[in-house]
Amino acid sequence: MTLHFTQVAIIGVGLIGGSLGMILRRKGLASKVIGVGRRVENLKAAVELGAIDRYVIDPKDGVRDADLVVLATPVDTYDRHLTEWASCLKKGAIVTDVGSVKGLLVEQAERAMPAGVHFVGAHPIAGKEKTGVAAGSDQLFMGARCIITPTKATDQQAFEQIRTMWEETGSVVLTMDAHLHDKILGAVSHLPHVAAFALMNALVEIRDQQIPSLDLVSHSGGGLRDTTRIAASSPEMWRDIFLWNRDNVVSFIEAYERSLSQLKQLIQVSDAAGIEKKLDQAKQEREKLSTRPTVPA
Amino acid sequence: MTLHFTQVAIIGVGLIGGSLGMILRRKGLASKVIGVGRRVENLKAAVELGAIDRYVIDPKDGVRDADLVVLATPVDTYDRHLTEWASCLKKGAIVTDVGSVKGLLVEQAERAMPAGVHFVGAHPIAGKEKTGVAAGSDQLFMGARCIITPTKATDQQAFEQIRTMWEETGSVVLTMDAHLHDKILGAVSHLPHVAAFALMNALVEIRDQQIPSLDLVSHSGGGLRDTTRIAASSPEMWRDIFLWNRDNVVSFIEAYERSLSQLKQLIQVSDAAGIEKKLDQAKQEREKLSTRPTVPA
Repeated sequence: MTLHFTQVAIIGVGLIGGSLGMILRRKGLASKVIGVGRRVENLKAAVELGAIDRYVIDPKDGVRDADLVVLATPVDTYDRHLTEWASCLKKGAIVTDVGSVKGLLVEQAERAMPAGVHFVGAHPIAGKEKTGVAAGSDQLFMGARCIITPTKATDQQAFEQIRTMWEETGSVVLTMDAHLHDKILGAVSHLPHVAAFALMNALVEIRDQQIPSLDLVSHSGGGLRDTTRIAASSPEMWRDIFLWNRDNVVSFIEAYERSLSQLKQLIQVSDAAGIEKKLDQAKQEREKLSTRPTVPA
Repeated sequence: MTLHFTQVAIIGVGLIGGSLGMILRRKGLASKVIGVGRRVENLKAAVELGAIDRYVIDPKDGVRDADLVVLATPVDTYDRHLTEWASCLKKGAIVTDVGSVKGLLVEQAERAMPAGVHFVGAHPIAGKEKTGVAAGSDQLFMGARCIITPTKATDQQAFEQIRTMWEETGSVVLTMDAHLHDKILGAVSHLPHVAAFALMNALVEIRDQQIPSLDLVSHSGGGLRDTTRIAASSPEMWRDIFLWNRDNVVSFIEAYERSLSQLKQLIQVSDAAGIEKKLDQAKQEREKLSTRPTVPA
């Protein structure tokens, strides 16, 4: 299909929104890209970087004539945004998002759409450690996965347009049920983030309460650095992901607590064979992950 | 000081023992390096790779005339080894090791030394994911840390020789109390390994019991891969490390369990500010680790 939008409004011109804007403009997929945000300085930078043609502060001014609205703000602000401007959308417009959680948020967005306006949820999996439009690039999504989460209510034509748009970014596009998305990402992405954040905090407690001479900077090696790399991710973004995917995240933390407790108990009673069995299972599963090249997540 | 050994016996010619042998031979620090092991095929490969001059199967034949014995077998075998051949050592000989745990093992080795034979414990921190002499290199220790753990009983001259030997490998040599070593490495290395092994096993449980369609290979991204990289480490080696550093490891797992439980509870009650505070602390501590280049551990 030929993809072309007359006017695109990007709400939240950060790393993801800004990179998408660059691609839409450079590939001629949109005649006009309008950025919406609160920080004028950031919006000016987005114009200079070619991410948007112009900007407005009031989202209603941005979305009124748009045939595509990209919601690229933190997921916790969706409700406030949709309440503020969904009623201004013109018939036939498509609203999409880029949030890392889908289930409840897709339901919320679908409920907020006026008649004749179509919502399609999407989650481009790219570049989580950097933030801001200045880190944006029209290559950001190249080879990365983008998961689109249609529902029974999704308009087929709107779905095709969003899928084509993400294919144009160079993403590997997958389609998945929104709640299954949250389970799978909860396991392979949200749980490792919990593990990394909590590990850094445990080391702080160990240093402060048990080993005053522990200098984490000079004593840490590659193992600790790799294991905790994603603990440097955005606290605001991950706070919202954990809250919006709360039930899955809590359930998976509990599975992790069981796994840790089992290993601890085997060590406590010096069960050499039991420990080795657990480590061997982990090694075998981990080695399977090495069979394909790494993509960002 | 000028370092020269007439005969070195390396007990266990794997990645670490083999790499050290290559360096001792290529830099002319030893007139003769004898490898001791059980697998003749491996010992033949070690000769071909230039890690040793020749090999013997009976360790007593290797250590009898040695002025340096390097114990480079799994730490759990130290007792058996020392019982077997310590009484054959000649006066003035030095015994050193390369084990990842030090406290109890250094005490054990010191008790096993006959009069006039000196033990100096050491822990070169290098290359834990690969194994075997074939992966060895005379560059393996370049820039890596090596922690030497002298005690009140340590002979000063023997200590200086072991320190000089590790400096010759290109290691950054640190000196530390053996029990403090186990606390610090327990925190910055052993705990992250527990976290990574247990995380892989938790994902297996989640897949098998909660998300049958979870394909860990195709769904995992960079976050999971980094967080679990060290779960591919040797089960035998890490089993022994966890057992020989048991009390520290169990205590640190408990700190980790507290940290995880705190974060879980904040998520359960949707305490957004509380979650953000925890993630923010983790991010700040993690970012400090980025201030110096990574060295292996």
